[in-house]
Amino acid sequence: MTNTHRYTLTISCPDRSGIIAAVTGFIAQHGGFIVEASYHTEQEAQRFFMRQEIRADSLPFDAEEFRRRFAVLAQEFGMEWQLADSSIKKRLVVLVSKQDHCLDDLLHRWRSGELLVDIPCVISNHEDLRSFVEWHGIPFVHVDMQSDKEEAFQHIAALFEEHRADAMVLARFMQILPPWLCQRYPGRVINIHHSFLPSFAGAKPYHQAHQRGVKLIGATCHYVTDELDAGPIIEQDTVRIDHGDTPDDLVRYGRDIEKTVLSRGLRYHVEDRVLVCGNKTIVFR
Amino acid sequence: MTNTHRYTLTISCPDRSGIIAAVTGFIAQHGGFIVEASYHTEQEAQRFFMRQEIRADSLPFDAEEFRRRFAVLAQEFGMEWQLADSSIKKRLVVLVSKQDHCLDDLLHRWRSGELLVDIPCVISNHEDLRSFVEWHGIPFVHVDMQSDKEEAFQHIAALFEEHRADAMVLARFMQILPPWLCQRYPGRVINIHHSFLPSFAGAKPYHQAHQRGVKLIGATCHYVTDELDAGPIIEQDTVRIDHGDTPDDLVRYGRDIEKTVLSRGLRYHVEDRVLVCGNKTIVFR
Amino acid sequence: MTNTHRYTLTISCPDRSGIIAAVTGFIAQHGGFIVEASYHTEQEAQRFFMRQEIRADSLPFDAEEFRRRFAVLAQEFGMEWQLADSSIKKRLVVLVSKQDHCLDDLLHRWRSGELLVDIPCVISNHEDLRSFVEWHGIPFVHVDMQSDKEEAFQHIAALFEEHRADAMVLARFMQILPPWLCQRYPGRVINIHHSFLPSFAGAKPYHQAHQRGVKLIGATCHYVTDELDAGPIIEQDTVRIDHGDTPDDLVRYGRDIEKTVLSRGLRYHVEDRVLVCGNKTIVFR
Amino acid sequence: MTNTHRYTLTISCPDRSGIIAAVTGFIAQHGGFIVEASYHTEQEAQRFFMRQEIRADSLPFDAEEFRRRFAVLAQEFGMEWQLADSSIKKRLVVLVSKQDHCLDDLLHRWRSGELLVDIPCVISNHEDLRSFVEWHGIPFVHVDMQSDKEEAFQHIAALFEEHRADAMVLARFMQILPPWLCQRYPGRVINIHHSFLPSFAGAKPYHQAHQRGVKLIGATCHYVTDELDAGPIIEQDTVRIDHGDTPDDLVRYGRDIEKTVLSRGLRYHVEDRVLVCGNKTIVFR
Repeated sequence: MTNTHRYTLTISCPDRSGIIAAVTGFIAQHGGFIVEASYHTEQEAQRFFMRQEIRADSLPFDAEEFRRRFAVLAQEFGMEWQLADSSIKKRLVVLVSKQDHCLDDLLHRWRSGELLVDIPCVISNHEDLRSFVEWHGIPFVHVDMQSDKEEAFQHIAALFEEHRADAMVLARFMQILPPWLCQRYPGRVINIHHSFLPSFAGAKPYHQAHQRGVKLIGATCHYVTDELDAGPIIEQDTVRIDHGDTPDDLVRYGRDIEKTVLSRGLRYHVEDRVLVCGNKTIVFR
Repeated sequence: MTNTHRYTLTISCPDRSGIIAAVTGFIAQHGGFIVEASYHTEQEAQRFFMRQEIRADSLPFDAEEFRRRFAVLAQEFGMEWQLADSSIKKRLVVLVSKQDHCLDDLLHRWRSGELLVDIPCVISNHEDLRSFVEWHGIPFVHVDMQSDKEEAFQHIAALFEEHRADAMVLARFMQILPPWLCQRYPGRVINIHHSFLPSFAGAKPYHQAHQRGVKLIGATCHYVTDELDAGPIIEQDTVRIDHGDTPDDLVRYGRDIEKTVLSRGLRYHVEDRVLVCGNKTIVFR
Repeated sequence: MTNTHRYTLTISCPDRSGIIAAVTGFIAQHGGFIVEASYHTEQEAQRFFMRQEIRADSLPFDAEEFRRRFAVLAQEFGMEWQLADSSIKKRLVVLVSKQDHCLDDLLHRWRSGELLVDIPCVISNHEDLRSFVEWHGIPFVHVDMQSDKEEAFQHIAALFEEHRADAMVLARFMQILPPWLCQRYPGRVINIHHSFLPSFAGAKPYHQAHQRGVKLIGATCHYVTDELDAGPIIEQDTVRIDHGDTPDDLVRYGRDIEKTVLSRGLRYHVEDRVLVCGNKTIVFR
Repeated sequence: MTNTHRYTLTISCPDRSGIIAAVTGFIAQHGGFIVEASYHTEQEAQRFFMRQEIRADSLPFDAEEFRRRFAVLAQEFGMEWQLADSSIKKRLVVLVSKQDHCLDDLLHRWRSGELLVDIPCVISNHEDLRSFVEWHGIPFVHVDMQSDKEEAFQHIAALFEEHRADAMVLARFMQILPPWLCQRYPGRVINIHHSFLPSFAGAKPYHQAHQRGVKLIGATCHYVTDELDAGPIIEQDTVRIDHGDTPDDLVRYGRDIEKTVLSRGLRYHVEDRVLVCGNKTIVFR
């Protein structure tokens, strides 16, 4: 990945021959220089997915004009598509509770310039992390989850809209989102679950894992849907444990794997590398 | 691990102070030289586990006399214990079906001297692997699973007894053992399951994994109990896959992880490194 | 990967815009259906690399005609290129010494149909593995390395030519090839080195690793050049060890990592996934 | 690991039989309850290493009295030994330059209570990280490396002494310590090197790795000696890269592996799990 100005074109459409030729022909015809290109056919769905990164300075027009011209071709192939402009940062609203390992990791990547996003605010149902967030110059919003949960989620949705955020990141938020909120933003709410799903869905996965005596534990970054812990998986990883590890040790190992998996999943999402097909993801790493 | 003559003493007993001192004191009192020593307390069960490897030539008596003398101490602490003698190889009966990747791996380790066991026979419900097994000079027994399953399993149990085998290895046997057989040999029947349990228990785990869109697949080596795919886990591992992998690719990756995990689990078992506590294992690697 | 009849087109040429469009346009114009497509630009060298898998039955002509027609386009872009036909198996000559773990792994993958190649012969400077090779129905050729090494290597080269082999696999051959032999078959002689190169090049790498006290050991699959252990790396991996492991334990762990790394590297090579650029490889996995 | 009050006894001495019995006998005789026990014999050096964690409340005397009484036994066996008291936190002085990924990780583990140490000050040759360090309530000391390096290192040594620090952590300090400083604190200065040593010692390891075309990169946590990047290795790990990764990508992957490896190595050191034998370490994980 470079920091030069790029357009990222992501496409999904029914599979047939000639798609790559048509798209790359369109780009080449305007002198476009492709920096990175990825393709995939999802066999069961007979659906084709592609992602192209194009150097913006190689094209004679801007993103708006690209979109206008490409729409003709897109219609012909029945494409769902979008063109992202690397000069316009994605906006992430981050939700946390009391635990800060994922937040710390995320904010470090943000302030070091590794994660190229804007974070208009961090929302929490606890006050604990206010000082840390505000040290970064990021507004911290406390939302009360004790008295009226429904109202709290309405508040969260309002903040999300108000900040015109692209994605909502549940960085160990520890609250189950209501179905209406999950359904409103498909493919835009990203959660980190502290188990290697589908094992140990639900509460206290590290204790479940300890109870079962597994030899590895894991974490899963996934899009949130209205079915708990069952949305499309973006990224997962595991780490070895052994009989000497207590549930507390698993929690400790888990923190490391959670932040690693969330940071990778988030990166893929922000760079438009994740395309959703039914309940699965295509991740063009 | 060395190839010198050793005794391996494994113990489990209620936890209290002074156990290590008593056992190592007993060994030291006879000049015994400890090569490797491992300890673990299982907190919930309040139970203590230990394993000692002792150089046989450092002791003034043989294994039988060791057992006779140690029994006094063992009774005092309420120990379950056993003393293995490295000069007496464990005897493994191996059960296979048509797929030979685990068998090939196992027999290679056996003929290269890495896996120090005797294999009195390989049993299969198909004839496919006869020539390969017999090339190794190992008897191959075909057991018909089509006509009378119960009779077939009676035959298998009879072979197991007749060969005075220590363990039965299901190297992708693809048949579910009847409860009476599982119960007869607790901690002695070792299976390799082609998923990262408890995910995707039961049939066709790779297809289940592909369906769910997980980003890693795995394999699990476990002791067989009468609850399917739910016995104590000895060893597990995972391998990364991605959206481009078909179920056939998963099967291919799976073969590699299966044979790796089975070979490790088998090694731990054969070297008396695995102690069972309820439905969990302590593995002194 | 599927087993349908495919052509694999691999290309390298000076980088410029329009290459993908030209190539995929050529394919589309004849109705060609692309199964898999990969691209890479090597920045320092300003060189572009691509690999396309095309379903043979989607094209109206055969491989020979494809090559004839494509040559025009290839010349225009200054391409080095080749078209492989999946119906014509690659031919591998395998060289071994006494250790058989890599050979066993390779022959198992071959006889199970996972590695789709022909093996016209296995060559060795020892007789030890004759029976195992011949059980597979593969000719075993003993070449005497004791009396006249130069003559022995002339013999090996003659066998390689006579069998019209595509690649020579050094599956722990333990002999250093003479420069003339390395130079004659660039990118066609594949070695497995038992260290994570560039660490511990040369002899007895596991002992060097033990001496240095590293916490991981590895293996490297690479193309052989006339500079010892310094050719383009195809694949590597590592495995964790600890202070309790003796050099013999490292050798044992090493066997597993060696065969894994060799089998992956070999697969990439056989499927035309490896392109060489200077002393580096592009591996389109 | 639990947070109960514990004593950790670490011992190294010439190998002979009866050591474990003598030490555990001493502990048992006073009713001591062993929480964790590890042993190792270094074959070449014929030296024995052990580590015992004992619950403080199970003993009838304090650490001082333990040391007084144990000294008799220790002398008999020619032991080098020490007894650490978990109620007395180790004191780490941390040295940084401009890059903060290791520092951020370390301070997060410290403020979350995962890393149980005191950090009397952070020292840097740049002012960049002052605000972040001071937000934690930790003094930040700027040391000028431009004008007089020798004086700067004298200042660092003086701060180390003044704060009675147990260890000095080079968290990407990017300056080579003078020999006198390395020699003054053997086994107490911990560095994180951004390569899988012994590969790519010295400057710009990620660029060296990119140049060589390796398929994995790594990081190494080691004790500093007066030979550059050649001290005893505490911990290492690797991560997979591919041909598409630029040197900048390697730097980014490297940050993650560096902080992971440093945090593990530091944890082992702080919990007295690392014993040095010549230029190698025994790490009782």
